[in-house]
Amino acid sequence: MIDAGLDAVIVTPGANMRYLTGFSEAGYERLFCLIAPLDREPLFVAPSVNVDQARRNPAGIADVREWNDAAGWHGLVEALAGELELTGGQVGVDDDMAARFVLPLQNILADGFLRSAGTVLSDLRSRKDRAELDALQRAASLTDRAYLAGRAACRAGASERDVAAAIEAAIVREGGALSFETIVAAGENSALPHHSPGGRKLAEGDVVTLDLGARVDGYCGDITRIVAIGQPGEDAARVYEIVLRAHRAALSLVRPGVAAEAVDAAARKVIEEAGYGDRFIHRTGHGIGLDDHEQPNIVAGNEHLLRPGECFSIEPGIYLPGRFGIRLENIVAVTESGVRVVNAPIPERIDVAG
Amino acid sequence: MIDAGLDAVIVTPGANMRYLTGFSEAGYERLFCLIAPLDREPLFVAPSVNVDQARRNPAGIADVREWNDAAGWHGLVEALAGELELTGGQVGVDDDMAARFVLPLQNILADGFLRSAGTVLSDLRSRKDRAELDALQRAASLTDRAYLAGRAACRAGASERDVAAAIEAAIVREGGALSFETIVAAGENSALPHHSPGGRKLAEGDVVTLDLGARVDGYCGDITRIVAIGQPGEDAARVYEIVLRAHRAALSLVRPGVAAEAVDAAARKVIEEAGYGDRFIHRTGHGIGLDDHEQPNIVAGNEHLLRPGECFSIEPGIYLPGRFGIRLENIVAVTESGVRVVNAPIPERIDVAG
Repeated sequence: MIDAGLDAVIVTPGANMRYLTGFSEAGYERLFCLIAPLDREPLFVAPSVNVDQARRNPAGIADVREWNDAAGWHGLVEALAGELELTGGQVGVDDDMAARFVLPLQNILADGFLRSAGTVLSDLRSRKDRAELDALQRAASLTDRAYLAGRAACRAGASERDVAAAIEAAIVREGGALSFETIVAAGENSALPHHSPGGRKLAEGDVVTLDLGARVDGYCGDITRIVAIGQPGEDAARVYEIVLRAHRAALSLVRPGVAAEAVDAAARKVIEEAGYGDRFIHRTGHGIGLDDHEQPNIVAGNEHLLRPGECFSIEPGIYLPGRFGIRLENIVAVTESGVRVVNAPIPERIDVAG
Repeated sequence: MIDAGLDAVIVTPGANMRYLTGFSEAGYERLFCLIAPLDREPLFVAPSVNVDQARRNPAGIADVREWNDAAGWHGLVEALAGELELTGGQVGVDDDMAARFVLPLQNILADGFLRSAGTVLSDLRSRKDRAELDALQRAASLTDRAYLAGRAACRAGASERDVAAAIEAAIVREGGALSFETIVAAGENSALPHHSPGGRKLAEGDVVTLDLGARVDGYCGDITRIVAIGQPGEDAARVYEIVLRAHRAALSLVRPGVAAEAVDAAARKVIEEAGYGDRFIHRTGHGIGLDDHEQPNIVAGNEHLLRPGECFSIEPGIYLPGRFGIRLENIVAVTESGVRVVNAPIPERIDVAG
C-alpha cells in the first residue's frame, strides 16, 4: 500500500476478502466489505444478516460495524470516512467491487478519488504458498476426474447439456463447486471459445470441446480437452497436433525469471508458422487460484517475470468458424527451478469416444 | 433514459444484458458490454473470444466492436466515446459493472460523470410478462422438488454439506443451475441467516434451515424451510409459529397499489408483538427474477407501490444467537387483483425428519 500510495484499501466479498481474512460471504446487493487503512487496524462493514459470521473471521478482526436494511449503509460509511480520515485520501478499491458501491462511495468520500487496488492485492495473491498449492492440486485432480465423467457421457445422440450435467454431477458428488460455467461445444460450436452448452446433439464425426473446472477449498481447477465422436477428420487431427505442439512450446519455456509474454509468444509462434495465427484469438493463459482468472496473464505485452509459486493456464487454441475449434489447456505451477504440471497429461491424439 | 437524463447506458454481462438482448455471456475480467445510446442503435463491445457469440444475439444487434487480448480494450472505447459523442455526457452504468471497468471508463469518458443506470433497468425488469412468470414458476417448482431431496438427506449423522450436496444434485439432475450458494445451517448455525454449509453433523433435537434455489431458463427460485431432527423443542415450535404468522400477515396484504414498506411492516408487527423485534434482523423480502435479489425490496422506507407482474420473496425470520433461527420463505407474484404464491405451501408445523 505504501508503494502504491494508498491510504486505505476496501475489499469486497470474494477472493480478496477470503485471501486476506480467511473468510468471505457473498454480500450480493448489500454493502459488505473489509476496510484496511494503512495506519490502523482493519475492520468490517457488514449488514446485520452477516454480522455474526463476520465476527468469527479466522483473521481475528474484532471491529465489525453493523448496518441494517431499514437504515441502509450510507450513513455508517459517511461516519467511518470521517473517523478513519479517508475523505479526500487515496483509497484503493477491489477490482471486483460493483458499480452499485463504487459510485456512491465516490460521492461519500470525494469525487473521483477512488483508485484500483488491483495490483496491491494481485501481487500478494499470485505467489501461492504450500497450502494453496495443495488446494490447487486437489482442485486439479477433481477436475481431471470430472473430465473422465464428461468423456464417458460423450456419445452420438447425447446433447451438449447432457455432457455438462455429467461433468457437474461428478464435481458436486465429490463435494466440489464449479470454478466457472462448464463449456461443452460440439462440432461447429467448438469454434466459439466460450460457447454455452445447449441442446445440440453430438453426432458421428464431431469434435467436442470440454472446458471445465472444479473448485476445492476455494481454489480453482480449469482444463480443456477435445473428444471426437468416432474417428475425427484429418483436418481436426492436424489442427490438434499443431495446438499440442504450441502448448508444449509454451510449457517448455516456463521457469522463474521468464517473461509472461515470452510464454505467450512461444505458443503463438508455432500456430503462426502453421498458418493459423489469425485463428488463435486469445492470450495463451491466465493466472489461477481463488479466482479462475487472476494474475499473471500470459499475454503479449506482459513483461512480468514469472516467480516461484505462480500458477496459470496454458491454453492455446485454433478456431475455424463454422467448422470446429481445438483448445488444449492444463494448469501449471512455477517451481524454484522450473515448472510442475498439476493436471493429467494431454493425450497425444484426439480422444475418441462414442 | 429520457426521464433519467441519460445519454447512454452501458450494460455488463448478467441479468441486464440477458434481459435486453436475450443473450449474455460472462466476460469475467475482459470488458464485454452493450452500449445503448439514446439516439443511436445499440452495439456490443466484445473481446475476440466472445465476438462470434455476440453476433448471434437474439435481439439482432448487428454492430459488434472487437478488441483482442494483445491490444486491450482502452483504445477501442476511447475511439467509441468520440464516435458516439459520449465524452462529458451523462452515461449510466449497470449496477453490476465491476470497478475494474468503472474506474478506467471514468478516466476515458471524463472524471466523475458516470451514474447508476440501476433504476432505468430495474424498472423494466421488475414487472414480469407471461413468459417470465412461466420460467419463474418452473424454477419455483424445481426448487420445491430439490427441497424434498434435501429434506430426505436430513438425518442424524449427516453433515450440513451432505444435505447441500443432495439439494444441488437434485437441481443439476433436472438441468437446473443454482440461484445462489445453498444454505444448510444446523442447530446454533441456523441463527446465522447466511451460514455456509460445513462439516457440522445434524443431531437429534436440531433445527435445520434449508435455503435453496434452482435457476431455470435464467429465472431464479428461492425458498427457506425448517426441518427438525426428531421432535423439536418447545421454543423452536413456538418461534416457528410466530414466524409463520408473520409470513401470512405479510402475504395477506399483497396486491397492486400496496406499498412495499407496508408488507414489511405487517410481518414486523407480528414479530415485534411477540417480543422478538430486535431478532428479525433483515428486510421481509427481495424482488426476484433473472437475479435472485432484484427490485422491489420489501423493506422499511420503500414507498414503491406494488404492480402486477412484480415477484418477490416473503421471508421473515427470528434469530437467537447460539441457539437457533427460524426463517420461512416463499416467492409470490403480484397479480391484477391480488397475489399468487408460486411455491408449495409452508408446513403448519416444523417438518420432522430423521
